[in-house]
Amino acid sequence: MWGMCSVPPHHREGRSGMYDDAVFVQERTVRIGDTDAAGIAYFASSLRLCHECYEALLEARNIGLREHFAPDGLALPIVHVEGDYKAPLRMGDRIRVMVTRCSLGNRSYTIEYAIVKESGEIALTAKTVHVAVMLPDMKATAIPEALREALSKTG
Amino acid sequence: MWGMCSVPPHHREGRSGMYDDAVFVQERTVRIGDTDAAGIAYFASSLRLCHECYEALLEARNIGLREHFAPDGLALPIVHVEGDYKAPLRMGDRIRVMVTRCSLGNRSYTIEYAIVKESGEIALTAKTVHVAVMLPDMKATAIPEALREALSKTG
Amino acid sequence: MWGMCSVPPHHREGRSGMYDDAVFVQERTVRIGDTDAAGIAYFASSLRLCHECYEALLEARNIGLREHFAPDGLALPIVHVEGDYKAPLRMGDRIRVMVTRCSLGNRSYTIEYAIVKESGEIALTAKTVHVAVMLPDMKATAIPEALREALSKTG
Amino acid sequence: MWGMCSVPPHHREGRSGMYDDAVFVQERTVRIGDTDAAGIAYFASSLRLCHECYEALLEARNIGLREHFAPDGLALPIVHVEGDYKAPLRMGDRIRVMVTRCSLGNRSYTIEYAIVKESGEIALTAKTVHVAVMLPDMKATAIPEALREALSKTG
Repeated sequence: MWGMCSVPPHHREGRSGMYDDAVFVQERTVRIGDTDAAGIAYFASSLRLCHECYEALLEARNIGLREHFAPDGLALPIVHVEGDYKAPLRMGDRIRVMVTRCSLGNRSYTIEYAIVKESGEIALTAKTVHVAVMLPDMKATAIPEALREALSKTG
Repeated sequence: MWGMCSVPPHHREGRSGMYDDAVFVQERTVRIGDTDAAGIAYFASSLRLCHECYEALLEARNIGLREHFAPDGLALPIVHVEGDYKAPLRMGDRIRVMVTRCSLGNRSYTIEYAIVKESGEIALTAKTVHVAVMLPDMKATAIPEALREALSKTG
Repeated sequence: MWGMCSVPPHHREGRSGMYDDAVFVQERTVRIGDTDAAGIAYFASSLRLCHECYEALLEARNIGLREHFAPDGLALPIVHVEGDYKAPLRMGDRIRVMVTRCSLGNRSYTIEYAIVKESGEIALTAKTVHVAVMLPDMKATAIPEALREALSKTG
Repeated sequence: MWGMCSVPPHHREGRSGMYDDAVFVQERTVRIGDTDAAGIAYFASSLRLCHECYEALLEARNIGLREHFAPDGLALPIVHVEGDYKAPLRMGDRIRVMVTRCSLGNRSYTIEYAIVKESGEIALTAKTVHVAVMLPDMKATAIPEALREALSKTG
């Protein structure tokens, strides 16, 4: 494991120092179930790790996502995803998965992520765009205030 | 791809000939997302392929599983799973995923599976045991008649 | 299941008619393992389905991806992914997963995808960008000629 | 999160008290990517969580699994898996994933697992059986001494 001191004081491009101000950070290890026969993390599994960090952020801020799964309530589906794979992740790699920024509109919000290796090298940057909709007809609606507050907090 | 003639007339142990009488068969190719860094199919992904074959069997027999996901209706959860890995599956391997047998009790049923390689070699045998329960309190109930009929048909 | 006639002759926006000229198409059913507790396909699983279609295209054109997993040979990692989720996919939905376009540079190529529902509604458009590199140091290299030819064929 | 005091002093059947002497424990939260449209953890994903705990145990004891992925070295494939699903796991559930026992033979070993809910209720018990083999011909071999020691330690 690493300490907080692993981030160098002077930020270099492509180094995690640029993420000193991450909104939320999870440390974990890349597991074999995250990888594929190319020996590195499967592209879609790396995105799952990012989404798990977003869920952990909401959990830490006391927002329950489960309540949004009622058939006639509010849902927060992903409408867009993007990822840039900058370095391979291998089984056993210690990583920090981060939410680096949350940007809020009225009815949608964007979560930005980075996965950073123990060396400080950035392996992935990604983003998911979510919309607030009312089920069952998926009409766009305002982001609930509690969620807005949770995503507006920094650090 | 292979033809049905790939199964030898004389059944040899460890060969798929013993599955001439499979209940349901799907042909597919092992994809990279099914594999892990050991270069072979991840143990849990192979079980997913089996379950997909069970779902395809129900689909082919006009049983909709989706209707069983209402919060207050019938559910058919898995209570037990078992798998025996006999040969590695690699990305690109052409396989036949089979339901080899369905066994019905009053309130539970067992689905048996095999994954067979193009060579006839058996890669995996597995089984899942399901119970019929009423939600939300998960009280055991009789298997619905339509499902019972669908699982009782052979071939 | 649907026939090829399911695509209407007059293309309407948001309808699959615009994909009459798809490079490669796979028909399949959304399985429960593709979905999550929101009742729809998990965002990363939908991307896996797209990648499986790209693998099937290569398989159909006799390109073996497995040979690219040697520790000192050519690799074709994904460096960028993007997806736009336009309609939810539910367990049991019959879908067509398509490679809609392949665009080739010297050392990189882009695969575009669509997932279309039986109704003709587009559920997802996505793209993956791949680079050709030599392992182990991941130096960019030219796309091999056989792969270039395979990805250049239309329909 | 819970403290170690959450395990009651008197062990009741079906309660985690019976796992006071777990070999290794990971706390985590069930994430939406672990679940399916039935609203609970997908059966194969729960097994992945168990395997991740086994990997974490090896990591904590300084055994690198990655070195076992060379094409001509030792491998430790799973030859058998079993799971008993005793209670549903839902997104957001806080769980403890445990290795409850390691049993060693000469050339194979068995890892037993439990997933326990915050309430103390056992959601899953499972086991994986592994064999030590030499690649590429998968001839059975003795379990390496360092692995044997790592799996022999208690608590």
